[in-house]
Amino acid sequence: MTQQKTILSGMRPTGRLQLGNLLGALDNWVKLQDQYRCFFSVVDWHALTTGYEDTSQLRENTYEMVLDWLSAGLDPEKNVIFRQSDVKEHAELHLLFSMITPLSWLERVPTYKDQIEQLKEKNLATYGFLGYPLLQSADILVYRADAVPVGEDQAPHVEMTREVARRFNFMYNKAVFPEPETLLNEVKLLPGIDGRKMSKSYGNTIEMSESPDVLRKKVNQMVTDPGRIKKTDPGNPDVCTVFTFHNLFSGAEVATVEAVCRKGEIGCVQCKKQLGERMQGFMEPIYERRQQLANKKDDIRGILEDGAKRAGEVAAETMETVREVMNLNL
Amino acid sequence: MTQQKTILSGMRPTGRLQLGNLLGALDNWVKLQDQYRCFFSVVDWHALTTGYEDTSQLRENTYEMVLDWLSAGLDPEKNVIFRQSDVKEHAELHLLFSMITPLSWLERVPTYKDQIEQLKEKNLATYGFLGYPLLQSADILVYRADAVPVGEDQAPHVEMTREVARRFNFMYNKAVFPEPETLLNEVKLLPGIDGRKMSKSYGNTIEMSESPDVLRKKVNQMVTDPGRIKKTDPGNPDVCTVFTFHNLFSGAEVATVEAVCRKGEIGCVQCKKQLGERMQGFMEPIYERRQQLANKKDDIRGILEDGAKRAGEVAAETMETVREVMNLNL
Ligand code: SF4
Ligand code: SF4
Repeated sequence: MTQQKTILSGMRPTGRLQLGNLLGALDNWVKLQDQYRCFFSVVDWHALTTGYEDTSQLRENTYEMVLDWLSAGLDPEKNVIFRQSDVKEHAELHLLFSMITPLSWLERVPTYKDQIEQLKEKNLATYGFLGYPLLQSADILVYRADAVPVGEDQAPHVEMTREVARRFNFMYNKAVFPEPETLLNEVKLLPGIDGRKMSKSYGNTIEMSESPDVLRKKVNQMVTDPGRIKKTDPGNPDVCTVFTFHNLFSGAEVATVEAVCRKGEIGCVQCKKQLGERMQGFMEPIYERRQQLANKKDDIRGILEDGAKRAGEVAAETMETVREVMNLNL
Repeated sequence: MTQQKTILSGMRPTGRLQLGNLLGALDNWVKLQDQYRCFFSVVDWHALTTGYEDTSQLRENTYEMVLDWLSAGLDPEKNVIFRQSDVKEHAELHLLFSMITPLSWLERVPTYKDQIEQLKEKNLATYGFLGYPLLQSADILVYRADAVPVGEDQAPHVEMTREVARRFNFMYNKAVFPEPETLLNEVKLLPGIDGRKMSKSYGNTIEMSESPDVLRKKVNQMVTDPGRIKKTDPGNPDVCTVFTFHNLFSGAEVATVEAVCRKGEIGCVQCKKQLGERMQGFMEPIYERRQQLANKKDDIRGILEDGAKRAGEVAAETMETVREVMNLNL
């Protein structure tokens, strides 16, 4: 019997997830849970790197996000679902890594200077924000993960994690850590219902656990080809948000939708109705699971407590070895 | 009954302490233990900030140093004697502080750039070396210490600790941390036996737990007024290392020593003999205690384990409050 490979991935607790989170990352996790030994982490310490000034929603956001994870089909028995801040070994390993990690490695992380610039109002010129890719290295390596599913923007962090692992192994003369591989998420860019980037600040989002009613309303509000006045006018799917969603949810029917639109053989109302049914078929099971789970905060707490225990055992084992090779054991 | 104030102080595990460590800091701790609730920490994580490349002596150095502490009269029942790396809350609080601490606070610590320059061969341009004053803030504040005995060079770190405490209390709207005071150690500068700075690399040190035999030899090797050839020549105590030591150990007799030296009424051999006796009187009890304790590694281990438990209880209580005000509790 071959040993299952280990992966670690995390999401910041931002509350209810959007549909884009489901298609971009979470549905990937749901697939991975059958192939790997998975650690899925609510990385609340990472949330602090940018959100330290207002933490009032942190707890609520954690519960809501884990609810979404479970609703999407993550199995808390099969996987270790836990909160980063419950496993102190992440902080310990981060601290030890800080000793051997050149400042320049962190300063040259591509996102670093951009983000400080972009999020000026958040005062990100902190020690913790500079060190956050190294915290990520500790998150990954404390479970000696073999691979890390990430979006393209996070790939440089995994690269740095490999460097940190190499440097540690070399310096203390023992292969304590593997050099984890990057599993690139296939990103499906989902626009908001107004065609712009989906963002809470634009009020154009669709949540992954939207109720059928709200989903229908939002699909009806989607912008279509603005050049089309009458339903017999030929339409241009290339500039239609509804069509972008068809592309993601309507499978083989997409070609038909495109054809009848271009010939003016379908009205936008009808076209949206078809999309709504498709999306509902996909999202309703998630919604229903969420309804069953909601208001069971104690269950979520129990899952996170159990996850912390299981993650903690693996992390403690790693740290035992780390301390030994560094002569930190008594 | 008024509550005793709390202090925290630490030393890096450098192995057997030198006489200068005793006079500069340790004898101060011995006094403080009767007035304060004291946490005395072997700060092994700090040792890593400069010594990460070779940790082979870390464990041995810890045992030797704690032996010296006990030999000097630190009472492990009265005080909490522990090893920093045994209390993970230091790492957790350090990480949380990192989120709220501007990089500029760390970059402007006076010693920072100097040390990188001075210790070029050690590659101190690491993330951990930059953050080490913040680790010190966590060391201090995790016990909500009211005061910190430090040498003058560390005073800016206590000042930063006060700033960190203020910022945290303000940001999370609760007076979780006191702003600790600085208790400046009265530093007595002790030269090496050759008159230069005392340093292992010069081979001119006197250890605080030196045996009477070795002590006598080292006193005999001390350099005296080089202008003095015959023992009836008038001497100049101002340029004599033996006299520097008389100043520290011979109390009221110093005036006599100075007078007879200047008049050429005492030979250097005789003068050294007097000093040797004085120093031995002071150091022999320490030596003897050390002999009794030596080779009882298990006792030292037990003391550190007990200390870690007691320190951990206090630290855990603080962290409970910290997590609560930051909304990090489930
Ligand atoms: S028919 Fe469908 S694809 Fe064509 S413009 Fe209308 S909504 Fe868009
Ligand atoms: S007599 Fe004593 S103080 Fe004077 S030079 Fe000799 S050793 Fe120094």
